[in-house]
Amino acid sequence: MEGMDTTDYFESYEDLEIHQLMLSDVARNKAYKKAIEDNAKEIKGKTVLDVGAGTGILSVFFAKAGAKKVYAVEASNVYKIAEDVVKENQLSSVIEVIHGKVEEIDLPEKVDIIVSEWMGFYLLHEAMLDSVIFARDKFLKEGGLMFPESATLYSAACSVPSMFEYWNNVDGVSMRCFGEKLRQKASQKPITEQIDPENILTDPENVLWLDLREVTAEDLNNIKIQQLAVANKEGTYQGICLWFTCNFPSYGTEPVTLSTDPEEEETHWKQTTIVLPTQINVEKGTPLAYELGLQRCNENNRRYKIEVTMLDPDEIEHPEFCNCYLTKCILVRAMLEKYEKDSLPN
Amino acid sequence: MEGMDTTDYFESYEDLEIHQLMLSDVARNKAYKKAIEDNAKEIKGKTVLDVGAGTGILSVFFAKAGAKKVYAVEASNVYKIAEDVVKENQLSSVIEVIHGKVEEIDLPEKVDIIVSEWMGFYLLHEAMLDSVIFARDKFLKEGGLMFPESATLYSAACSVPSMFEYWNNVDGVSMRCFGEKLRQKASQKPITEQIDPENILTDPENVLWLDLREVTAEDLNNIKIQQLAVANKEGTYQGICLWFTCNFPSYGTEPVTLSTDPEEEETHWKQTTIVLPTQINVEKGTPLAYELGLQRCNENNRRYKIEVTMLDPDEIEHPEFCNCYLTKCILVRAMLEKYEKDSLPN
Repeated sequence: MEGMDTTDYFESYEDLEIHQLMLSDVARNKAYKKAIEDNAKEIKGKTVLDVGAGTGILSVFFAKAGAKKVYAVEASNVYKIAEDVVKENQLSSVIEVIHGKVEEIDLPEKVDIIVSEWMGFYLLHEAMLDSVIFARDKFLKEGGLMFPESATLYSAACSVPSMFEYWNNVDGVSMRCFGEKLRQKASQKPITEQIDPENILTDPENVLWLDLREVTAEDLNNIKIQQLAVANKEGTYQGICLWFTCNFPSYGTEPVTLSTDPEEEETHWKQTTIVLPTQINVEKGTPLAYELGLQRCNENNRRYKIEVTMLDPDEIEHPEFCNCYLTKCILVRAMLEKYEKDSLPN
Repeated sequence: MEGMDTTDYFESYEDLEIHQLMLSDVARNKAYKKAIEDNAKEIKGKTVLDVGAGTGILSVFFAKAGAKKVYAVEASNVYKIAEDVVKENQLSSVIEVIHGKVEEIDLPEKVDIIVSEWMGFYLLHEAMLDSVIFARDKFLKEGGLMFPESATLYSAACSVPSMFEYWNNVDGVSMRCFGEKLRQKASQKPITEQIDPENILTDPENVLWLDLREVTAEDLNNIKIQQLAVANKEGTYQGICLWFTCNFPSYGTEPVTLSTDPEEEETHWKQTTIVLPTQINVEKGTPLAYELGLQRCNENNRRYKIEVTMLDPDEIEHPEFCNCYLTKCILVRAMLEKYEKDSLPN
C-alpha cells in the first residue's frame, strides 16, 4: 500500500478534493450525525475535542447537539476553512478552532468527549488513530466518551472478476496477459474497489477489534491473524476482501454503526482487496486458510505492509463447530448435533 | 486544465490503470467494435494503421473483421502488452506491433484505413489528434477511411449542484465557504464529472466540427466561438458543460456514434464543465451568451487553455429563428410564423 510521510500526509489532506470526497460521503456524515444527535442528552453542557477536525463538520454537529465547548484541532491549512464554517454557522462562541498537531497543542482543560474521523482504507491506512490515542491519553477525562467507541476490521475470501474473468473476453478479444499485469501490480498494492456482495464467498472473520477507550499505539504495530473461513457458496477464490465497521456510544438507543461492508451503502472507503496471484475454484464447504499480517513499516511511519500467506487448511485448527467439508469436521459436527439433540428436554 | 509534456504523456500512458479504465469503458469498446464489424465488407483484405494502439484491442477488432494487415503503432512501453495480446489472439500473421512514435516510424506501404482512439477530455485534451493527422497525411491512401471519420464538440449551459447548492446544507451544516473554495479551484481547472441530464439548461450548441479526413493541426490551435443559447427550462446557470461525439464511416448501415452526451451511457470521459464564479437564475426563454475559447498553449504542447467570457445577450446577433424572450426575437418569431402559415397551400 502506498504510504506517505508526515509532511505529505498533511499536504495531501490540504487538498480540497479529498475533503469534497469525504463531505460527499453520505453514509459517513449520516452515521456521525445520528450518533451525535442520539446522544444529545449525554452531550449537553459537555466539552469536546475533535481530533483532525478538517472542515469542522463534526464539531458543528456537537455544537448543535448542545456541547458547551468544542476544541477543533486541525494540523493542516484546512483549519482556515473550519474557522469559516464555524463563523458561517454562528458557533464561534462554542467552537474554538486550533491550528496545530494534537501532539503539540495545549488545552485549558480536559474534555468529556473525543470525536475523530480517523479511519483510513482498511481502517488503519495512514494511522491517524495514533493521534487520537495520544489525545485520549492526554486530554480525555476518566470515563469520557469516544466517538466512535469501537472499531472492527473484517476479512472474507472473495472473487475479483475485474482482475480475472473480465480479461478473458473483452468484447471478443482475449486479454489475459493484461489481467496478469494488473494482478502483478496488485500483488504490490491492494486494490480499493467496491466489491459486489455476490462476490463474497465466506462469512466475514474478525481481524481486529479495537476498544478505542483502551487501545494503545503499540497494539497497532503488528497485527497477525490466522483465518479459517469456509466457502458458503460455489465460486472462484481470487482475493481477500477487507472492510471495517465503527460503533458509537449509546445510552438506551440503538447503537449507530458506520459500516463499509460490501452489503451496505457505498462509502468513499469502498473495500480493500488483496488480489491472489492465481485463482482457486471452491465449492460450498471448502475450507480456506490464510494468515493475514498488517505490519507498520516503522513506528514513526503511517505506512502499513499487508501480507497474505496461504495456509493448508488441514494443518491449522478448525473451530469446534466448523461447517467445512473435511471428514474430521463433518464427524465432529454430527457428534455435536447428536449431543445437542440428546440433551434437549423431552 | 492540467497539461503534460510529451515525456510525461507517454509515462502516464504506460500506467496500467489508465488502460484498465479505457478497456473497462463499455460504450467506447462497443462503438469501435460495432463500427468495425458493420464495415467488414469495406475492411476485408485492406491494410490498416492503428495510431496509438495501446493494448492493441482496436487492431484485433480490425484483424477479426478481415483486414489483410494491421500496423499497430504504439510509442509507450504498453506496446509489449499489445504484442502479447496479438499472440494470445493468434493474429501474429496479420497484426504487426511497431514500437515508436508515428512521426518517426516508417511503413512499407500506404494504408487503406487509419484507426485511432485519440479523444481526450473535451475531445482535445492531450492533443493526440496531431499524431493522427500526421499519420493520415503521410500514410493514408487517397480516399482512405478514417475511424472515426468526424467528431463534434458541444457546449451547453448547465447547473452544477455539486459545486453550489450542495454546500448550503451538508447534513444540516452550512458549508458555503467550502463551496466557494471549490469554485475558486474550478476556475483554474475545469471539472471532469458526469452531469445529470436534468441539469442541462439549454439545447447543445456546436463548438467545433472536425472532418478527420481534412482537418489540419493548425485548425486545432485556437478555437474561439460565440454561443447564444436559450434556456429551455427554469434553473440555475452555474457552468458550461462540454462533451463530444464521434462518427464512424458507414456504407448502407446506420452510422455508429460514440457519444459522451450526458443523456447517454456514462463513459470514462464523462463531461468537462467550466464552473462559473457566481450563479445566475434563468427562466425558460432566457438568452445566455458566452464566448468559449480553447487555445493551445504553444504548438509543441499538448496543453489547452479553456476560457469562458460572459457576453451581453443583447449585444450579440441572435439566429433568425430564436426562442429567447427578448422582444426583438418574439416579434421576428411571430412574423416568421405568420409568413410560414400564409405561404402554406390552402
